[in-house]
Order: sequence, then structure tokens, then C-alpha cells
Amino acid sequence: MKINKWRLQEHFEIISEYGKIGETGLCRPTLSKVEKEAFKVVSQWMREAGMTVKIDHAGNLIGRLEGKNPSAPIVMIGSHLDSQPYGGRFDGTSGVLAGVEVAMTMKEQDIVPESPMEVVAFCDEESWRFKKGVFGSRAIVGQFEPEELERKDKDGVTRRQALLDFGCDPDKVAEAAYPDGVIGAFLEMHIEQGPVLEAQQLPVGIVSAIAGPIWLTVTLKGFAGHAGSVPMNMRQDALLGAAKMIGEINHLVRKEQDAPTVATVGSLHVFPNSPNSIPEKVEFSIDLRDIDLNRRNQMEKQIRAMIKQVSNNYDLTFEIQEDTNLKPVSCADWIQQVMIEESRENELNSPLMVSGPFHDAVVMADTCDIGMIFVRCKDGISHNPAEFASYDDLALGTELLYHSALRVFTSINEEILASSN
Amino acid sequence: MKINKWRLQEHFEIISEYGKIGETGLCRPTLSKVEKEAFKVVSQWMREAGMTVKIDHAGNLIGRLEGKNPSAPIVMIGSHLDSQPYGGRFDGTSGVLAGVEVAMTMKEQDIVPESPMEVVAFCDEESWRFKKGVFGSRAIVGQFEPEELERKDKDGVTRRQALLDFGCDPDKVAEAAYPDGVIGAFLEMHIEQGPVLEAQQLPVGIVSAIAGPIWLTVTLKGFAGHAGSVPMNMRQDALLGAAKMIGEINHLVRKEQDAPTVATVGSLHVFPNSPNSIPEKVEFSIDLRDIDLNRRNQMEKQIRAMIKQVSNNYDLTFEIQEDTNLKPVSCADWIQQVMIEESRENELNSPLMVSGPFHDAVVMADTCDIGMIFVRCKDGISHNPAEFASYDDLALGTELLYHSALRVFTSINEEILASSN
Repeated sequence: MKINKWRLQEHFEIISEYGKIGETGLCRPTLSKVEKEAFKVVSQWMREAGMTVKIDHAGNLIGRLEGKNPSAPIVMIGSHLDSQPYGGRFDGTSGVLAGVEVAMTMKEQDIVPESPMEVVAFCDEESWRFKKGVFGSRAIVGQFEPEELERKDKDGVTRRQALLDFGCDPDKVAEAAYPDGVIGAFLEMHIEQGPVLEAQQLPVGIVSAIAGPIWLTVTLKGFAGHAGSVPMNMRQDALLGAAKMIGEINHLVRKEQDAPTVATVGSLHVFPNSPNSIPEKVEFSIDLRDIDLNRRNQMEKQIRAMIKQVSNNYDLTFEIQEDTNLKPVSCADWIQQVMIEESRENELNSPLMVSGPFHDAVVMADTCDIGMIFVRCKDGISHNPAEFASYDDLALGTELLYHSALRVFTSINEEILASSN
Repeated sequence: MKINKWRLQEHFEIISEYGKIGETGLCRPTLSKVEKEAFKVVSQWMREAGMTVKIDHAGNLIGRLEGKNPSAPIVMIGSHLDSQPYGGRFDGTSGVLAGVEVAMTMKEQDIVPESPMEVVAFCDEESWRFKKGVFGSRAIVGQFEPEELERKDKDGVTRRQALLDFGCDPDKVAEAAYPDGVIGAFLEMHIEQGPVLEAQQLPVGIVSAIAGPIWLTVTLKGFAGHAGSVPMNMRQDALLGAAKMIGEINHLVRKEQDAPTVATVGSLHVFPNSPNSIPEKVEFSIDLRDIDLNRRNQMEKQIRAMIKQVSNNYDLTFEIQEDTNLKPVSCADWIQQVMIEESRENELNSPLMVSGPFHDAVVMADTCDIGMIFVRCKDGISHNPAEFASYDDLALGTELLYHSALRVFTSINEEILASSN
């Protein structure tokens, strides 16, 4: 094994302290003080690997290992250091620490490729704080939307303010964008967050495609009133309508039994949220995802029609806002092929698989070829303090990432030579 | 008219500024800084009416007009100055200002009855802050439970701390209790919070009975997981279970169409409440009320059985906590009779009616005879900034309260004389 599994483990143990909840959980919100502290620690490791380090104005932490040819296409490796509010220590962090480990190993092996390498911890992959995520990777591919600076978290803090507090200049977020062609390839290692690898008793998988999520926010309005004095048949109870819709969404998405379509209402807020007031307003999220965009679009259409119908039946008004809409994407065939070969070389026997969760790689696919490696996680559990991946499995994934990255460097440089001849 | 309707209106206009939200709404939480400010203003008016004023250790504001016989049973008039978080300016406040107006009018008319009169603004009638209410009136009748000092509001502030911040000594709450027999009668004027008086085009009603509410808190536990990677059929989604229960509660309570039973799920919290995490825990309130205790108990039983069944079907665990359980009560026949006669005398033609909402009077019924007067409110709306009662109607209600109170003084003193003979 070329990478240093003990160093990787040590890095995990150190970084897990930043935002630790309970024994094994993590709460490291994007653009928070604790994420900034984690950035500092990782920056130090990046410098030890010989990288120059910066935090761009979109809140991305970027370490750069200069190539022999500084203007050659960059090979970027990354993931995120922010977590769910009640999350685990491996989601995102694995990919960042693996990238750092690849850089350290390259330094130890005296490998200086033609292309520069950048290791990135993207800002706000998790999306929950401002209900619109993959912020950092979208900024890098030029998909930043200025109006999203005014989005507020649950405490009323805007993204603009959070960026300022983080030391970024929100008026310069657009400067984080990389022109087309500057990034040659993007690689991401991530825990699977599902049960497939465990069922197959395999430590590492190679991702072929990533499901695309659409996020909607539904706002229902009825009319508040005293819980004691308004007869049942005269009520406009927004929570009663929301409850009906939540049941119907589940019903609709389970109709086609063999489809991998999933829909989740994960967040819900009631106003005024008092035991003896009839709910006047309810806001809830819908997360709908599929690897087949047509099927997802059909399902979205049915859900929208159902919301209209139920609102009508319960004497409510409704609004539906689209927060995130990412298409399913495929990983580049040639990178999949590289990974398959390197997996065979390292006796990993890694299967090809699809990803239900989305990742920064989905966004990066907009500007370059992408490749993804999955690491087995216990019981398929993620977004939960019980999330667990073994250090052995993480080391095997990182080893595959290292060998794959070296091959990607070579391929990209051969391509440049070929095109300049 | 004996009372001064312009003074009453002026008092309303002044007090409505304390906690004002929007043009017509009110947010005056119990034991808050803004309630303390309102207490100061009302204290001043009480002193102008010749009363001595104190705030007891349960957070009740009490003004006392001494009687010729200081040890005769007290005639108490009161309601509350705290409001719903998104409430109106008349709920509770009407009864306190009417009590002050009665005292001021008695002073102007040089009336000094045998019995002392006390005007009270009870602490935490509204119940939402610590999810167990009518705190002040319960303390007065000796129903304070020490463990409820540790109840927390949504920001984690205990009732103990809130009392301390308010200037009370939480270890002396029990001292607020009045021994049995010390209070001779309790009168409360309140807005109707329902549509009956408006439908009958009458300004003022006389309450015959008050529905008793039971409050339950239901906690459901499932298992969090990534919204993208856990197949629909492997989920333990606590919000999906809660949604089913909310629908079923509504269904159950509407079965008996002619019964005045009402059930409301007004408050609901999701954990971790993130759009892409499957909800692990949901906590929601049930407010169930009826004027028939047997029917309410039957309904509670059905709801509890349904919660068990649905939890089972959705692979969730559940807990049900009882927060408040108040029996329906009747107003004293003789006070109803006094009010009917005085209403006739004042050409009000007030109907007898039941109250869906509960009031401090329900608690006070535990220690003395009670009477209640309702004032018409627009569209039956309450617990909402659109809550409205006209100053003319409020003056008519206060006039009826004044005349009824004088008759109650007389009756109580006649009773004392009769029993001492």
C-alpha cells in the first residue's frame, strides 16, 4: 500500500473532534466557526503536503500542488467538510482527507505531474442551512446565483452574513468560478451512504451514475384560530393539509415498486406552532430523486397535481418553490475504466454502482469529466451519528483514489501532447 | 352607563402597544419583559382605583381593594395579560381591564363593600411557552406542582429561570395559594373566541359551562437516514407516521357529527428537520376538548389506541405524555341568575352559552363559585392578529360585569350574615 493508512486514521481522529456530538456524531454546519477551525487544521496538512492554500470567496478551501506545467488542466480531488445537523463523521470528510492523503503520498513518492492538482473542501454541500446547497462547487463551475446570498438560515442569518463572518467577501463569490477547460477532471471519494457494498461484502465501489435530486419547498396557508372554539368543519388547518400531502407523496412514489425513486419530507415548520392554535401556515420540503430524469419529472408532475388537489379539498392556498434541481449524471467512461483496472490491480474487485445521494461531483460534471469511488458503510446508515466506515476500508478507497489519480494525470497529459502534435 | 367607556378604550389603546405585532396583533409571552412592562402600567391604574398592588411568587399581578370587613370572603375578578405568540389584543386583556374599570367605577361611586375585592392578571394562562398553562390560577387554588418549574420553553429557558427573571422566587410559588373559603366568588369577562354571539347579533353572553381540555404530547421515534439512499420500504420515517396520526385524529373526532368535540394538532417539531434526512423523531401536541367528560374520555381512548396501531404499522416507537387535564365545569347557578337579571335590567338580552376555550375560571371553580361573561368577537376569530371586539361591546360587557359584581358582593355578605345569625 502506497498511502499511509495510519496517518489517514490519525487525521480522521483529529478532525472528528471539530463539531463532535455524542460519542460518534457530528454537527459541523457550513460557514460555521467550527467548520472554519476544521479548515485551519486541514490547511496545515495541505501545507505539509507541499500545497499552497486559500479560502476563496465562495467559502471553498483549496489546496494547490503546482504541476510542472502550471497552465495544464487541473486534476481536482475533493468533497466537503460540512455535515448534517445530526450527522456522522465520514460523509464528505472522507473525500477531503483522502485527497490530502493522495497529495502527501505523491510528495513522499517524489511525483510531480505535468498538471497541477487541487484538493478542495467545497462550501455547503449539505444544503440544509440555507436550503440550497452544493454552493461551493456551483460557484466553481459558474452557477452561483447572486440572489441566494439573501437566503436565511433558521436563525435569520443570511448567507451573505455567514460568508462575511467566515472571512469571505460575498460580493466576490462569482470570482470563485474556473473558466471552462481549466479543470481537466474531478475525482471524489465518498462513503456509499447505502447498503449495497455491505451486502456484497466488498470494501470499495466505483460509481457509474449519480441520481439527480429536485428539492421543492411547499408553503400552505390556512387560517389560525382558537383550538377550542372553531368547529371542526369550519377549519382551514394547514397542518392537516400537509399531513394528507405527506401521506400521498409516500403513496405516489411507492406505486412503481421496482423503481429506485425516493421521496422524503425531511423538514417541516408550523406557524404559529402553539398547542391551542389551529395551524395557519405550514412549510415543508420535498426531496425527490431518481437516476432516470423522465421518471422523476413524471413523479414531480403527479406530486404537484396532488398538492393542488389537496389544498383545494382542505380550503388552503399553496405555493411551491423549487430550491435545487440537479440532473442525474454519469461518471466519465474512461475514468470508470481507469478505476476498474486499478481496482483489479489492487485486488479490490470493486463493483460498478449507482449513487442515490448527490455529491459535489454532480455539479463538477458540468465543467469536466468526473469519477467517483464509494467506500462501504455500516448498515448503509448515513446522515446519522451511527454512520460508520472502517479505517481499513477508507484506506483501501484512498489507495484506489491515489492510483486512479496518477493514471488520470497521465491520460490528461497524453491528451494535451496529442492535441499539440 | 356607570362605567367610563372612554377610559376603558384609552386603557385598551395604551396596553395594546405592549407586545404589538403588525397593525393589530399581539405577542406578549408569559413571564416576559414585555409582560412585566404591561404589569407596571396596569399596576398604576390599580393604584389609581385605590388598590394595593403586588406580584406574587407565581407571577400573578394582584390588586386589592380593601373591604369594610377585611376577613370577609374575597370577590375576585380576573383574567390574563399574556397572549398567544401570534395572537390578538383582546384575549385575556379584556377581563383584566374590565376588572380595573369595575374597581375605578366603584371608587367613583363611593362604594365600599363589606368584602375585599381583588383584580388579578393570572400568570401564564396561554400555556404555550412551557406547554402547561393556567399556572397562576392553579397556584392560587393550590394546584402548583413543583416539578413543572423545570419545564423548558423552546429556547431551553426553564420556568424556574423565567420566574426568577420576572422577579419572583420560584421556591415560594406555593405561598401564592389561598386557603379554601377565602375567595367567595370569581368573575371573568372574556371575548367569546367563537362565532355564536355574532350570529345572534348580540354583544354580550352569559356562560353556563366551560369545555375541559386535555393536552397530550406524542413523541414518535424512527430512524434517521440519507434521503437519497434508503429505499422507501426500508424506512422508519417518524414524520410519515405523525402525518397518518394527524389525519386519523381529525377523522375520529368528526365521526360524531353533532358533538361539539374538537381536536387540534397545533404544534409539531421534526428532528433533525433537514430536507435530505429521513425524520428520526417527531413531537406533536394534541388538544382535545368537550363539555361532556365521558365523551372526551372515550375519544382520548380511541386516539391512544390509534397511535399505538399506527406506530406499529410504521415501525416507530411512541410515548404519550399528558400535559394538562382539566374537567369541564359549570358556572354557579346563582351567579348565572344574577347575570341574567342584570342583563335584563341593562337591556342586553344576553343568551346563555357554553365556552369551547378554557379559562382561568375553570381552575378557580375548584375553590369557589364562578361566573363568566362573553363579549362578541368578529368572525369568531381569536388566537390570531385579526381578533377583534368593538369598544362598544367591551363597554357593555364591563357594565354587566360591574352590576353583577355589586350583586355578588351583596349576596356573599347576606350569606355571611345569615350564617352568623
